[in-house]
Amino acid sequence: MLPRSVSILGVGLLGGSIGLALRASGTDCLITGYGHRRPTLDAALSVGAIDRVADSPARAVEGADLVVLCTPVGLMGSMLERIAPALSPDAVVTDVGSTKASICRAAGRLMSDPGRFVGSHPMAGSEKRGIEFARADLFAGAVCILTPLAWTAPAAVRTVEGFWNALGMRCVRATPAVHDRLLADISHLPHVLAAALVHMQSEAGLDLAGKGFLDSTRIAGGDGALWRDILMDNRANLRRSLGRLRTALARFESLLDRPAALAAWLNRAAARRSAVLARKLREVTPD
Amino acid sequence: MLPRSVSILGVGLLGGSIGLALRASGTDCLITGYGHRRPTLDAALSVGAIDRVADSPARAVEGADLVVLCTPVGLMGSMLERIAPALSPDAVVTDVGSTKASICRAAGRLMSDPGRFVGSHPMAGSEKRGIEFARADLFAGAVCILTPLAWTAPAAVRTVEGFWNALGMRCVRATPAVHDRLLADISHLPHVLAAALVHMQSEAGLDLAGKGFLDSTRIAGGDGALWRDILMDNRANLRRSLGRLRTALARFESLLDRPAALAAWLNRAAARRSAVLARKLREVTPD
Repeated sequence: MLPRSVSILGVGLLGGSIGLALRASGTDCLITGYGHRRPTLDAALSVGAIDRVADSPARAVEGADLVVLCTPVGLMGSMLERIAPALSPDAVVTDVGSTKASICRAAGRLMSDPGRFVGSHPMAGSEKRGIEFARADLFAGAVCILTPLAWTAPAAVRTVEGFWNALGMRCVRATPAVHDRLLADISHLPHVLAAALVHMQSEAGLDLAGKGFLDSTRIAGGDGALWRDILMDNRANLRRSLGRLRTALARFESLLDRPAALAAWLNRAAARRSAVLARKLREVTPD
Repeated sequence: MLPRSVSILGVGLLGGSIGLALRASGTDCLITGYGHRRPTLDAALSVGAIDRVADSPARAVEGADLVVLCTPVGLMGSMLERIAPALSPDAVVTDVGSTKASICRAAGRLMSDPGRFVGSHPMAGSEKRGIEFARADLFAGAVCILTPLAWTAPAAVRTVEGFWNALGMRCVRATPAVHDRLLADISHLPHVLAAALVHMQSEAGLDLAGKGFLDSTRIAGGDGALWRDILMDNRANLRRSLGRLRTALARFESLLDRPAALAAWLNRAAARRSAVLARKLREVTPD
């Protein structure tokens, strides 16, 4: 059953898309929005992503069954601190942050009942930022990673899972620590690499950039402040990921004098990527 | 003026697309194809990429005004060696290899008149391979890098430039050495990085791969043997590019404790990439 009253804290690309997707799902729940910039709230109201605005985080969560934190990762903790005293006893809280260990720790510290917090990472987004890019179908067909802990209330997990399902997402579960380790490899490191790859180019090199280079570096187009938060929050894992990448690159260099082994190394990478792509396509169009 | 007789040695994705594009340009020149696999030649004939097949490289270039080497980089030298004695005195020779220093050196060594060789690198392609993916518009709007040397005949450069122009390409010039250095940065290193990024992932990480990861690693889907040739041929430059990437990554790591500088580093990369993208779009749709 979907919550009757949902609060969205931060109505940018993700928060706004949640509101639009929730409305598109056919529920008549009340959607309250909070954001620190009034024009953003007005835009969210006018596109129908939220039904009403609140003038403070605490006000926004009054009476809410489900609260979704959609602020940048660096502000999640302070937002949770501001709303914790105002939460209804039965309210469930989740978030959309790209890192999970720190927000789950913050929930344990700040909420009177940490069992009612369920970390979420909807794996959908864009290098664009802001309510003007919000879309009702942003989450359709994508995966959401939930990070419940041993003390998380099963009912709270069901509420959050049902919520993402209603928005078209498939949920999987991981511990916050495992989530952050895997995401460092599969998402945060690729972002850093894309930026480093742009930085190391000469202007003359960039003049020759083709579709391959632009695709490889597309994710470097994201907002610097948002990504700064994510990368710093997950820096311990990211340092380990960088170390493993360095090992892979050293392996490559050692193959530059061994033609057959080099071709095999390249072909194994191509095959592994193809397998991922094939799996994705099967998920999108199941039998 | 387009040549009246063109020989294409190697009729895969690039060679086949050259034939199709040449035919689509409206010229009635005779297109002769050579390849070491008969089914490939038959396919090239049946889609109209070539008019006739030759049963040896030497036969293929007899009477040709322009010869285009379209074999993998690792075979360019031996192909040139086989055709050199059979070339007409006025024949111009070019190639489509992704590296330029080694083939230009080979031309100097093997051709009786090295001034009639003009290295080319049409910056178009696909991670796909083979005549079945050949397309008449593969080159339309893309850049071709020509690498004439001091002793190259100006008339030969004009012939090759006119040829690529007829196929819809814009030509720029660079020395073979500069070409190989820039391409190591903008194309060969990104390919290696994409493969390394796939190799370092755990299976659990790959299960969470999203569009960002798939885009970043798309170029790793290319054929291992073709890329082995390119990477080995350009390994001295590639090692230098890897060194510069390591410097950029070390710079990133040093910023993990400096939030403002890290956000600025990320934003500069995003802005630099956007500028490249904007320039590309202007080139495709000039005023």
